[in-house]
Amino acid sequence: MKRTDFNGNLRAEDAGREVTLVGWVARRRNLGSLVFMDLRDRSGLVQVVFDETMAARVKDVRSEYILQVTGLVQMRKDANPKMATGEIEVLAKDVRIVNTAETSPITIADDSDTSEDVRLKYRYLDLRRKPLQDNLILRHKICMITRRVLDEKGFVEVETPILARSTPEGARDYLVPSRIYNGRFWALPQSPQIYKQLLMIAGMERYFQIARCFRDEDLRADRQPEFTQIDIEMSFVEEDDVFAVVEDLMKAIFRETIHAELDEHFVRIPWIDCMKKYGSDKPDLRFGNEIHDLSPIFADTGFQVFRSVLDQGGEVDAVCFEGLADQYSRKTIDRLQEFLKAGFKAKALAWLKMENGVLSGSVAKPLSEEEKAAIVKELDMHDNAIAFLIADQPNIARSALGALRVKVAHEHDLIDHSQYKFLWVTDFPMFEYSEEEQRWVAAHHPFTAPKEEDVDKLFTDQEHCSSRAYDLVLNGYELLSGSIRIHDQDLQEKVFEAIGLTMEQAREKFGFFLEAFRYGTPPHGGVGIGLERLTMVLAGTENIRDVVAFPTTNSSLDLMSEAPNTVDDSQLKVLGIKTDIKTPESE
Amino acid sequence: MKRTDFNGNLRAEDAGREVTLVGWVARRRNLGSLVFMDLRDRSGLVQVVFDETMAARVKDVRSEYILQVTGLVQMRKDANPKMATGEIEVLAKDVRIVNTAETSPITIADDSDTSEDVRLKYRYLDLRRKPLQDNLILRHKICMITRRVLDEKGFVEVETPILARSTPEGARDYLVPSRIYNGRFWALPQSPQIYKQLLMIAGMERYFQIARCFRDEDLRADRQPEFTQIDIEMSFVEEDDVFAVVEDLMKAIFRETIHAELDEHFVRIPWIDCMKKYGSDKPDLRFGNEIHDLSPIFADTGFQVFRSVLDQGGEVDAVCFEGLADQYSRKTIDRLQEFLKAGFKAKALAWLKMENGVLSGSVAKPLSEEEKAAIVKELDMHDNAIAFLIADQPNIARSALGALRVKVAHEHDLIDHSQYKFLWVTDFPMFEYSEEEQRWVAAHHPFTAPKEEDVDKLFTDQEHCSSRAYDLVLNGYELLSGSIRIHDQDLQEKVFEAIGLTMEQAREKFGFFLEAFRYGTPPHGGVGIGLERLTMVLAGTENIRDVVAFPTTNSSLDLMSEAPNTVDDSQLKVLGIKTDIKTPESE
Repeated sequence: MKRTDFNGNLRAEDAGREVTLVGWVARRRNLGSLVFMDLRDRSGLVQVVFDETMAARVKDVRSEYILQVTGLVQMRKDANPKMATGEIEVLAKDVRIVNTAETSPITIADDSDTSEDVRLKYRYLDLRRKPLQDNLILRHKICMITRRVLDEKGFVEVETPILARSTPEGARDYLVPSRIYNGRFWALPQSPQIYKQLLMIAGMERYFQIARCFRDEDLRADRQPEFTQIDIEMSFVEEDDVFAVVEDLMKAIFRETIHAELDEHFVRIPWIDCMKKYGSDKPDLRFGNEIHDLSPIFADTGFQVFRSVLDQGGEVDAVCFEGLADQYSRKTIDRLQEFLKAGFKAKALAWLKMENGVLSGSVAKPLSEEEKAAIVKELDMHDNAIAFLIADQPNIARSALGALRVKVAHEHDLIDHSQYKFLWVTDFPMFEYSEEEQRWVAAHHPFTAPKEEDVDKLFTDQEHCSSRAYDLVLNGYELLSGSIRIHDQDLQEKVFEAIGLTMEQAREKFGFFLEAFRYGTPPHGGVGIGLERLTMVLAGTENIRDVVAFPTTNSSLDLMSEAPNTVDDSQLKVLGIKTDIKTPESE
Repeated sequence: MKRTDFNGNLRAEDAGREVTLVGWVARRRNLGSLVFMDLRDRSGLVQVVFDETMAARVKDVRSEYILQVTGLVQMRKDANPKMATGEIEVLAKDVRIVNTAETSPITIADDSDTSEDVRLKYRYLDLRRKPLQDNLILRHKICMITRRVLDEKGFVEVETPILARSTPEGARDYLVPSRIYNGRFWALPQSPQIYKQLLMIAGMERYFQIARCFRDEDLRADRQPEFTQIDIEMSFVEEDDVFAVVEDLMKAIFRETIHAELDEHFVRIPWIDCMKKYGSDKPDLRFGNEIHDLSPIFADTGFQVFRSVLDQGGEVDAVCFEGLADQYSRKTIDRLQEFLKAGFKAKALAWLKMENGVLSGSVAKPLSEEEKAAIVKELDMHDNAIAFLIADQPNIARSALGALRVKVAHEHDLIDHSQYKFLWVTDFPMFEYSEEEQRWVAAHHPFTAPKEEDVDKLFTDQEHCSSRAYDLVLNGYELLSGSIRIHDQDLQEKVFEAIGLTMEQAREKFGFFLEAFRYGTPPHGGVGIGLERLTMVLAGTENIRDVVAFPTTNSSLDLMSEAPNTVDDSQLKVLGIKTDIKTPESE
């Protein structure tokens, strides 16, 4: 079809040219005998004018009709500075109605007040909005840059199976019944973890894949049943090598999409220090207000409350905000306390305000002058500063103050939104205590290597046994997870034992994979980067559905195609399954 | 880990350099007090020499152990011209055993006589072979080039869902039961067809995706249960626009992978002419030997056999081979006849040989001299030429001679394997007759547009109604299929009616998709390119498993992970299904 230009690209310098355009009618206005239409294609909008004679040919044309227009570009009398093409318009000389359109069931506009559910049902119409199209183009760009950067570094993209083996760990698997082997099932992969490690054993050395992953979980707002991971694995590497690749990748992506120059090297912090300083393993570093452990100040305190917490192995932590003391009335502080009690188990929130050089507040009285002076020094408090203190078990005090730190920063706009603060959190714990199972379980997948110096803690001090797992955090979001893997068979067996698996159980769970380790496994490690999260950060949206072409609701429904749907019994029959639904009566 | 060089890259100019290498021991030889090892990484092999003192440190090292070696590159006394690194070797100064390896259960060599099944079980070891690694790297390159070329042309890669709606057409779907909506199922997509057409309706204009597709079919040797398609769709286009994009893409891929320059424009031939000339819709054009319709010569023949075939609407077709008459004894010809009878329903194979200017053969006697002269002229027969003739119904005569054409060409090596002969076959029939259902059914998916001039044949002459579907054929293989789609609602309804669907049935099958067509659908079309087939052609292999990292057997089994496998009943319970396997007794 003839088309000389893209609508959104026309500018003043095109004036005088004859162009042929195609596109959708975004808006139609009649002005006396003239008709004006905004014609939309992927590049944007341009105004087309139909004079008296031409107007008759478009008298039935309505919104979302598709036109092919030939006409002359001319300068507009009243330029529209809000439109990229606002200086010009196209005077139609010929027009063809390419297709008609019924009235759209949703308003195709960014300020549409159509509910999200209805827009999801008509996703193909909602996707006509430029911000959504731009997000998909951004996502495409991120993938193009990723592939170019990794290819240049010698990585090979390898497609691993979607019809995979079910491995009973992690989240719930989506299952696919086999027609040829009735009674057997594939699982859709939660990640290509096992395949990528096998590729390292196979000697591919540098693998990546922009891979679809599947988890049958109850969805949170920022999850979808299927999602995409930039999956990377490398052989003969240590943490530094993996970090260097990821940092180069992030720098290229941020430079080429949003023109942001990232720091030459990203900050690194061991997990334990991160928890002490920020009470979170994904801290937002766009603001300071770190947590301080004031316990040393109270080593000999006479304040009974602090005394007894310290005696029970607790600590006294504090976060200080300059210039906010006058913003916090007792009522405001009470609300903060309620928030911490409900979500973070913190029993009490103490506070101190610095006003005219004097400390006041909930614990001003019971503390000695020396203690108060030491607090002011430690927290570097100035006039109108407020410090929040929590005396509790370390985990509780830290995570409560970590949450308070973020809440106050958001409420008082302490965050510089132009910044991109990356942070490697390293040395994650090898184990976490399962209250449910009353034992230590693997904090990551069981192929994560322990830190070399902590190998002898595997059985003796699981709480303090660190792993070689790491996260990359950006502005408070976890962008990726990864680790250096175990490549030594003996160590692997020890780790299985430490998480309570006998070799027999391990073989039952990971059989063929364990066997593979016997034939010359190189040291290796890698990462999995959440593509949707990365795109959301770069697009500046909090809604994952803004960066997915055909998303589902939080209950995994596709409102457009109504998937999942019922199928014919004959389809189930060849698969050797039947439905087995508990009706309320039968339960 | 320290590593200064890749093993396979070392050359004479590196002599004198100290290098640190890592890799797998591919071969070990003891020569007196010296030990020689070939050290393998992804780049290739290099010979490492351990002198008397170093040899002691590697005395236990066996094949597939992983070493880190520091040493001096030196010229070899006896260069090995078969190795890329054959001019040099590395004299080890330091060595570290990075990992040990048990004896490999398969021979890791290209001439391995280990059976394919065992190699599939230990795929991660078989993948250590360079030809397999090179195939995966080739596949990666094809994808990189594809994405670059399409991105430059304004195409946007959009990921469409893997958890999709089951649409009851085409091949059998893989189903995924829903946990949240027990009794409902997703289907894994057979292709992103519906989604890519929705993206056109959404105004994305130029879409592509290197997309995983799934078909639950009984596998042929060149199929896998999941496969990958380079999926392309464009708006506001006709055939020429689609062909131009694909031709540019193919030229870039062939130039940049195997350094082959393709023709500026690919040959095009309408389907009906293709069938007449080659008896196949995917002819191999690397050799001539086209089919000639000799029927006009026999318009008034006295030869009763031809006479009666022609009277019944049949035709007399022939294929001629120069220089092969002396290769075909009666016995050889009988075998050819058996082959055609069994596979192609051809009742009889006639033949004529040109020897010393005289025609002999099975039909030399009954034909008149005039007829024979006309045959010699039409087929341009010279001495030692042999012509094969079939008188039968057109479809049978053509496809039998088409098969004969290929068989003879292969047996007598008439094919120039250095050539890449592309061919667009256009104007495929809109319908094909289903003997099973005793009616005309859609030859492609029902969204394929009929040729404009054939729209009125939709109900009156379905046999001769052509569509805007096309294939790209390379050297006898179908590389891709595609079509211009219907964008007009009325026409779509007519086509449904023509294939025997009421609008009600159509809505039940394609409901939401049909609704989408109402809101302004642009003219659009596209293709789906089989990535595995393309890679196979470029890699020069006939085995699809050579271009898939983790392939299955023909019965869809992954011998490595033993997927599909049985799962816990508890997993099925939450999905609301149970197995329903017919044991032989219960049937």
